[in-house]
Amino acid sequence: MDTKAVEPAVDVVRIFDTTLRDGEQSPGASLTSAEKLEIARQLSRLGVDIIEAGFPAASPDDLLAVQRIAQEVGTPDGPIITGLARTHKGDIDKAWEAVAPAAKPRIHTFLATSDIHMERKLRMSREEVVARTREMVAYAKAYCDDIEFSPEDAGRSDPDFLIEVLAVAIEAGATTLNIPDTVGYLTPDEYYDLMHKLITETPGTEQVIWSVHCHDDLGFATANAIAGVKAGARQVECTVNGIGERAGNTSLEEVVMTLHTRRPYYHLATNIDTTQITRASRMVSNYTGMIIQPNKAIVGSNAFAHEAGIHQDGLLKDKRTYEIMTPETIGLNQSRLVLGKHSGRHAFRVRMEELGFELSDDDLQTAFERFKELADKKKTVTDADLEALVADEFYGPHEIFGLMDLQVACGTTGMPTATVRLRGPDDEEFVQAAIGTGPVDACFQAIDKIIQAPNTLIEYSVHSITEGIDAMGEVTVRITSENGSSRTFGGYGADTDIIMASAKAYLAAVNRMLTVKGGKYGKPEGETSTITVAATA
Amino acid sequence: MDTKAVEPAVDVVRIFDTTLRDGEQSPGASLTSAEKLEIARQLSRLGVDIIEAGFPAASPDDLLAVQRIAQEVGTPDGPIITGLARTHKGDIDKAWEAVAPAAKPRIHTFLATSDIHMERKLRMSREEVVARTREMVAYAKAYCDDIEFSPEDAGRSDPDFLIEVLAVAIEAGATTLNIPDTVGYLTPDEYYDLMHKLITETPGTEQVIWSVHCHDDLGFATANAIAGVKAGARQVECTVNGIGERAGNTSLEEVVMTLHTRRPYYHLATNIDTTQITRASRMVSNYTGMIIQPNKAIVGSNAFAHEAGIHQDGLLKDKRTYEIMTPETIGLNQSRLVLGKHSGRHAFRVRMEELGFELSDDDLQTAFERFKELADKKKTVTDADLEALVADEFYGPHEIFGLMDLQVACGTTGMPTATVRLRGPDDEEFVQAAIGTGPVDACFQAIDKIIQAPNTLIEYSVHSITEGIDAMGEVTVRITSENGSSRTFGGYGADTDIIMASAKAYLAAVNRMLTVKGGKYGKPEGETSTITVAATA
Repeated sequence: MDTKAVEPAVDVVRIFDTTLRDGEQSPGASLTSAEKLEIARQLSRLGVDIIEAGFPAASPDDLLAVQRIAQEVGTPDGPIITGLARTHKGDIDKAWEAVAPAAKPRIHTFLATSDIHMERKLRMSREEVVARTREMVAYAKAYCDDIEFSPEDAGRSDPDFLIEVLAVAIEAGATTLNIPDTVGYLTPDEYYDLMHKLITETPGTEQVIWSVHCHDDLGFATANAIAGVKAGARQVECTVNGIGERAGNTSLEEVVMTLHTRRPYYHLATNIDTTQITRASRMVSNYTGMIIQPNKAIVGSNAFAHEAGIHQDGLLKDKRTYEIMTPETIGLNQSRLVLGKHSGRHAFRVRMEELGFELSDDDLQTAFERFKELADKKKTVTDADLEALVADEFYGPHEIFGLMDLQVACGTTGMPTATVRLRGPDDEEFVQAAIGTGPVDACFQAIDKIIQAPNTLIEYSVHSITEGIDAMGEVTVRITSENGSSRTFGGYGADTDIIMASAKAYLAAVNRMLTVKGGKYGKPEGETSTITVAATA
Repeated sequence: MDTKAVEPAVDVVRIFDTTLRDGEQSPGASLTSAEKLEIARQLSRLGVDIIEAGFPAASPDDLLAVQRIAQEVGTPDGPIITGLARTHKGDIDKAWEAVAPAAKPRIHTFLATSDIHMERKLRMSREEVVARTREMVAYAKAYCDDIEFSPEDAGRSDPDFLIEVLAVAIEAGATTLNIPDTVGYLTPDEYYDLMHKLITETPGTEQVIWSVHCHDDLGFATANAIAGVKAGARQVECTVNGIGERAGNTSLEEVVMTLHTRRPYYHLATNIDTTQITRASRMVSNYTGMIIQPNKAIVGSNAFAHEAGIHQDGLLKDKRTYEIMTPETIGLNQSRLVLGKHSGRHAFRVRMEELGFELSDDDLQTAFERFKELADKKKTVTDADLEALVADEFYGPHEIFGLMDLQVACGTTGMPTATVRLRGPDDEEFVQAAIGTGPVDACFQAIDKIIQAPNTLIEYSVHSITEGIDAMGEVTVRITSENGSSRTFGGYGADTDIIMASAKAYLAAVNRMLTVKGGKYGKPEGETSTITVAATA
């Protein structure tokens, strides 16, 4: 039922996407600058209002990544670009340096207000927190009109103290006030009550946009965000696929589709082009290696599947018996068949442009060659295949060691054996063979013999990108270095041969680890680097 | 803070687990009878109050599976065992036949009450629905005291008509009334209002337990269930990992941990032993092939992981800064190292018994031999490895074709090639070689050359069971037969060699398809069978 004709004017809820900041803080989800830029471009196509592109003070490379997104995606008709900063002058300076190139820059600064955080982590008194808030919001305001302030762990803060801090933030120039339930502790009723109290009682409330930021530790991230919107919030902080620290953040797609599907109930709109949801979801999952379970709302592979006989029977009689939204709304089941082995360079270039990939002539030629190889093996090449191919070829980490040759033998009869040839720094070549418990183990052991960078494999997963027995496989691995740090590194590889894809993914993770650790392989040009500090709100 | 000492007596919320009924309706999640029984045993260890073990009228094998669970798990101090039935005499007869052996049997019958379902699917008038409800609840009551009634699609039903139907169900003898939001359409506030109205206005309400049944299409399954509990419901229908039709059901672990973590807020308890949650979650994921995303609340691999520097800093100063529950509460991080290559038969038997596996002497010997093989390859064998080994060896579908030998060669230099030897019906042996786009494709193609059962591979995924480069890989595949039906078949395989695991998983799925389709390979003894009809509530 299209109710637009009779509906009164509706308020717009701003979508603040923090996939590149809070989402990237998911263990193992680190992204390269190139991956971040591609995701930011897709977020812009999706129509998000604000992109939180990173935490510029975390490292020089984080700053550069935010800056590049500000330059290339933060156009006058594009989204607001923001970067996170603690309430420190140094953080705020760096955040401004990063977001300044955007047509619509925002600085987002935060300070914890719960007793446990103030006492145990910050070791600051309430008075000190109020004073710091006033001083640092004003400091940021001198750079930029658009200032967001978040009282970290607001969910466990004294509401009356929160009002005091927030009133000071408004006086000092904050234009958006974001209320994080940092540890995912509140229930929807509690979060509604908190937001209602803050919105109605904070002096100066009419001058600001109120924002929600929820975590899913108890499964309430979406319900809490919507409860906050019901209380009057008009910005929702969220991530694609709900990734983020621990159980993650509010899912962008769940909030957007709730407001979309239940528009006659909420009378609220977003600026999101829902048909871009599926592509954004797939891209974020591929680049971060954070898989999506089949029963994930909206974007899971079963979300629109019906198995039970009675359901199928009902659907045949009337789709509305069991379907409250259509797959087409989120861009699923659109014609995905694009190219075959007879497609030429021009058709390929056009399709890549339609998909939004901006490749140089050289890169386009490389991509075209890989496409032809793939089309020789696989009957039909879909958009998903092309996205995987581009991700595998162009957006991986800086390659310190590259895969030249791989040869594997395995089965029930012998010991699984792999022979690997790598090209290392200064184009030196290395060959090693190893046996393992399986072909992937053998292959990783051969790589380890060459690179000798001790690590522990903590996750290994493979997915087929498309249906069909000849599908490309995507492998994601996560490793931790064995130097006692708990930092994890992800790698991604795509190939029709999953052993090949595994070798690529493992090499990508090891390269990322070597890059971050520096040491004898040095630090390459601005792809990733040591994150000395990171934060959440 | 332990508040038990000062807390007043609390109400208990009954946990009604429908993993084996609504959960098994997830596309591709079909379970064998042996797998269902093992899951039922774990649900009993977990302490659920009611197990909905299946839909007995769906097929003779479904009936047998429910009956076996009723016999073996439905002990006097075990859970209530129930089976679903449409409001048809035939369905109710079969449900009773299935649950009667349980010490505490229940019949659960349902009939849709929304206008769209009554008009478009049932083609029944309101009067006919009321009459059918009265007649069939009374018919079930003649068998059994414990009767649950569900008005399907209650979330979209006229509340006043619902009250009429529910009052009649109470008069006819229903003892539990379950209110399903079948299509996952309602928001928490709407669901609260609906439950509140039904609980306060339905004549006879004081004689029944009210129950909630929610779906996650918009991401509200947990919030809606808790909203219903707040309105007075004292039974929650849910599934482990939230699996189920489309985006799935309310997650058992989210509801249980919400009531546990926020007990001072809700003043409600469950009978669940939370330390069994991790094992239940892993077992259901392994057997159904429904993977769990890292950012899944409570049971995701990241749920207790902290990446950001500030978080880690805070946690070191005081865990409570970012942690609202401990991993130990859900049975995570318990000592999982059990056995090594020097462990003897006795230690192995004891550990298997501790894990709750009831194996015959022959099966125990087989399992012990596989354990020794594994211990030769892998330094440490964990509980998770043992569970995977048992699942792979004993709970797969009836084996029409079995894997004898496999030999694979692949890499950058040649064409991926696989040679497969299978043992078919009547012990006949078949050998075929095939090339493919990768080793898995080559292997599946060789199997296809032998079996010639056309199908499409719709999902392929691999996970490592445990950390470490020598880990076992678990492969799950889902296929659809090419006869135009949309039925999917899942297969599972575990091995340290992922090509071997892939071959086993694919063979398991093909065997399941052949078993269900019957045809020239006939139908084996009661493992799986054609599901002619299935249902949801």
